[in-house]
Amino acid sequence: MAIEDMRQPVLLEHASRLVNHGPTVLVSSEHAGQRNVMAAAWSMPVEFTPPRIAVVIDKRTVTADRVRASGALALNVPGRALADVTFTVGSVSARDLPPDVDKFAYYGIETFQGPMLGLPLVSGCAAWMECRVIREAHTEEAYDTWFVEVISALADTRVFENGRWSMREDNAALHTLHHLGAGRFSLAGPPIASRLLEPAQRRL
Amino acid sequence: MAIEDMRQPVLLEHASRLVNHGPTVLVSSEHAGQRNVMAAAWSMPVEFTPPRIAVVIDKRTVTADRVRASGALALNVPGRALADVTFTVGSVSARDLPPDVDKFAYYGIETFQGPMLGLPLVSGCAAWMECRVIREAHTEEAYDTWFVEVISALADTRVFENGRWSMREDNAALHTLHHLGAGRFSLAGPPIASRLLEPAQRRL
Repeated sequence: MAIEDMRQPVLLEHASRLVNHGPTVLVSSEHAGQRNVMAAAWSMPVEFTPPRIAVVIDKRTVTADRVRASGALALNVPGRALADVTFTVGSVSARDLPPDVDKFAYYGIETFQGPMLGLPLVSGCAAWMECRVIREAHTEEAYDTWFVEVISALADTRVFENGRWSMREDNAALHTLHHLGAGRFSLAGPPIASRLLEPAQRRL
Repeated sequence: MAIEDMRQPVLLEHASRLVNHGPTVLVSSEHAGQRNVMAAAWSMPVEFTPPRIAVVIDKRTVTADRVRASGALALNVPGRALADVTFTVGSVSARDLPPDVDKFAYYGIETFQGPMLGLPLVSGCAAWMECRVIREAHTEEAYDTWFVEVISALADTRVFENGRWSMREDNAALHTLHHLGAGRFSLAGPPIASRLLEPAQRRL
């Protein structure tokens, strides 16, 4: 894959908007030189300022081990061009690969270094966030739910600029993936506007 | 609104799929005869079996008061036809309405009774779930994050059947809403399939 991202920093106050609409994310991690990446359909913001996100990571995964050890993770927001990569890294465990090969190398997934923590970020995504884990032992154990705080955020300006997503025909490869199950995804379509209703009484 | 839903029960083992793809939901609640409804862009499954969901409800809202008192809430999954309703109940607090009028009545939002708890469910949605709250004082306080367990689930069979979402041209009014911010929504598009990648070595 030779992908030229058009990456620009995103204000931290806008970071939660990167996952506000419920896209599947790729969770990348690194500890002691060992990298990994998995898909997570289940994440959500819990706060805009500071930008905090909850993400479900099964405690038995290699990713959970790395994140527990390093106290950090990155959230990558893939678009349509990375649907197969997303399904694959969500289906195959690092434990099933040959020794000394990580998923990035095994599947030829290109990365670049995160600006704050140097975490491996997946090239070709629509957006990226480096995050510090806020350790919450109970929710990690009971619900596989991890709380993180975003400390750096980037987006591809072709689809997210000035704090706003803009899905259009000309950036279809970057439309975010919303997992329906079993490798089937809905793509996020072009924005529609909504309006405040008048009280029903006035309409009668 | 005169809406004829085509509602059928959803197996509880499929309930988490109703929000797997990150739609904005309507949180409806009732306590001591007082009803309310608000929009929540932030929710996610945390478990398939039993079906458990995390949802962010600001602790200062009327909904949080009702949910705390009743120990229950309903999650309604609106589609495109309810975009204005969703934006409106997410923007206007019950506290700003005239006394003795709830948001349903004020805005002419039709409801039906949930099958297990009798909670007010919003007519015209794509799916509905009645849920019991699993009280988690710390995450409610620290992150406005509530954990619930689904005890009944329904869906409109025109868009969700046999455990699967199916967004098509002929059910566009039921395509789920994914909040981009400020009342702008992406709609979930028709499913695309993905495939498992071969190792990069074999592709070289």
